[in-house]
Amino acid sequence: MRTMNEFFKVCRTPELAAEVTLQPMRRYNGLLDASIIFSDILVVPQAMGLEVQMIKGKGPHFPEPLDTPKDMARLVDMESGYNVDDKLGYVYEAITLTRKLLDGQAPLFGFIGAPWTLMAYMVEGGGSKTFERSKKWLYLYPKESHELLDRITTVSIEFLKGQVRAGAQLVQVFDSWAGVLSPEDFMEFSFPYMKRIAKELKNAYPEIPTVAFPKGLHEPELEAMALDTEYTALSIDWTLDPEKVIDSLGEKMKATGRTLVLQGNLDPTVLFAEPEVIARRVEVMCKKFKKCQHIANLGHGMMPGHDPEHLRVFLEAVHKYSKV
Amino acid sequence: MRTMNEFFKVCRTPELAAEVTLQPMRRYNGLLDASIIFSDILVVPQAMGLEVQMIKGKGPHFPEPLDTPKDMARLVDMESGYNVDDKLGYVYEAITLTRKLLDGQAPLFGFIGAPWTLMAYMVEGGGSKTFERSKKWLYLYPKESHELLDRITTVSIEFLKGQVRAGAQLVQVFDSWAGVLSPEDFMEFSFPYMKRIAKELKNAYPEIPTVAFPKGLHEPELEAMALDTEYTALSIDWTLDPEKVIDSLGEKMKATGRTLVLQGNLDPTVLFAEPEVIARRVEVMCKKFKKCQHIANLGHGMMPGHDPEHLRVFLEAVHKYSKV
Repeated sequence: MRTMNEFFKVCRTPELAAEVTLQPMRRYNGLLDASIIFSDILVVPQAMGLEVQMIKGKGPHFPEPLDTPKDMARLVDMESGYNVDDKLGYVYEAITLTRKLLDGQAPLFGFIGAPWTLMAYMVEGGGSKTFERSKKWLYLYPKESHELLDRITTVSIEFLKGQVRAGAQLVQVFDSWAGVLSPEDFMEFSFPYMKRIAKELKNAYPEIPTVAFPKGLHEPELEAMALDTEYTALSIDWTLDPEKVIDSLGEKMKATGRTLVLQGNLDPTVLFAEPEVIARRVEVMCKKFKKCQHIANLGHGMMPGHDPEHLRVFLEAVHKYSKV
Repeated sequence: MRTMNEFFKVCRTPELAAEVTLQPMRRYNGLLDASIIFSDILVVPQAMGLEVQMIKGKGPHFPEPLDTPKDMARLVDMESGYNVDDKLGYVYEAITLTRKLLDGQAPLFGFIGAPWTLMAYMVEGGGSKTFERSKKWLYLYPKESHELLDRITTVSIEFLKGQVRAGAQLVQVFDSWAGVLSPEDFMEFSFPYMKRIAKELKNAYPEIPTVAFPKGLHEPELEAMALDTEYTALSIDWTLDPEKVIDSLGEKMKATGRTLVLQGNLDPTVLFAEPEVIARRVEVMCKKFKKCQHIANLGHGMMPGHDPEHLRVFLEAVHKYSKV
């Protein structure tokens, strides 16, 4: 019971969240061009009324996930006076404090989980290989699934706006489980909600850049994300070839008067390699992105066994090879 | 120690392997158009000298996986008199016996794991979310990785030829972990070996159809698999849209004088849905494949919680909707 609460305790204590956010800024002095607030996508399901535990070495666990649509009654309802800002104000405080402590060294990202990804966690009760419980919901209860996704979206948009007001200068939407859906299911159950988030955020704060990370998505649906939503940038994982994405999307984006901005995409397992291998891989990556605006990044998050000094090699190589 | 040995005991006992292969033929009488021999892709690493246990509820486990390239000395060597047919003859016997018992009701598939997929298991020691150990090998020891992949390929081709001589009428190569590699790594470490298998099998047995299943592959690398190898058919998982694959590949295949044959691709989690949902999804799938030759199938294997009667619904719907 101790370890599982420590993670969310850090999220909920603005001083601790700020400290954890600032540590990499200090360690990699001058090498990081942006910072992302220490928090978790699952604070939203928590704020909607579900208990979430973080179990060391195992990941998130919901003791009482949603089993059937009846269980949606356990979720708080925006219409009955529920206030997102009250529930998640601790994230705003962490953002405001971190902005002050960052003191202009680098812009600060806020983030949320995509509605489908959060729904999957809420129904599966944790991570999954097969997503059989949450996909079964989509197949058996499409109407209720849309209702659930709609409710998550409404809360998420409010939360993201609150993060911006608190000081977030860019925001990212993580659809970690986009790639487990068939293309039709992604287009029906994830895409419209991803699209609404970008639109409503742009309406409210047109100057704030938004990034979508639909992990595991194939090229055709990625094209829909690029052409038919208002995200400023797309983050891509390492299984996509940036040159091919740029070839197929660059001209179409230009035709709509917009610019293709991509974030990514080095395979994070490359950080297990020797420094010279990492540097060579970064060089290849930077070349592959050179025909579009590029936010250099790993194609997914850090892993427990990574040597922090290998991240330094990555960052130094990015600075070296991203100069034209 | 008991449960883990039972699985491979069935593989190694031709009468039991034949019985398990024939059970679905009896249960779904007349609904199955093909049969696949009961075996496992990991019989090849076993035959090369590594111990593999099958642990119930957990999957395969290698007590002593390959740690560094030095450990390759523990693998048997084709050049030192090692005979694939001796080591894996039990699979051939199972195939011959099953062919006889099938008595022409349906053709019998043989199969192997792709070299990269087998290498990943041999180095990781089992399944993995991140494949950090096996990818680290690729990054740190590219030369030795190629040597290992080459040795696995040589054994696999011999094994596949033996399966054909024993009576397999089609053969499938499962690259279950194709999709965890970056495109460059797939093209360097998996593709050439997949290509060699199809080529050598075609040289030896031109009449035997071959199917490649590079799970998780994106469209550009799938195109290389279709255009630049000699596989008769490609199996695709549910994350690809068959219509889009056909649109982008059909004409190019025709230009090379070949026909696009696709196998797949219903999301296996659909079998958790109610019968009418399954039937509707199968109808949609069959329509999406109607512009190419199609082997209707799930986009991946069955899962432990599936109701066998739901598979019957799937099979009946395939028969209903695949008629033009």
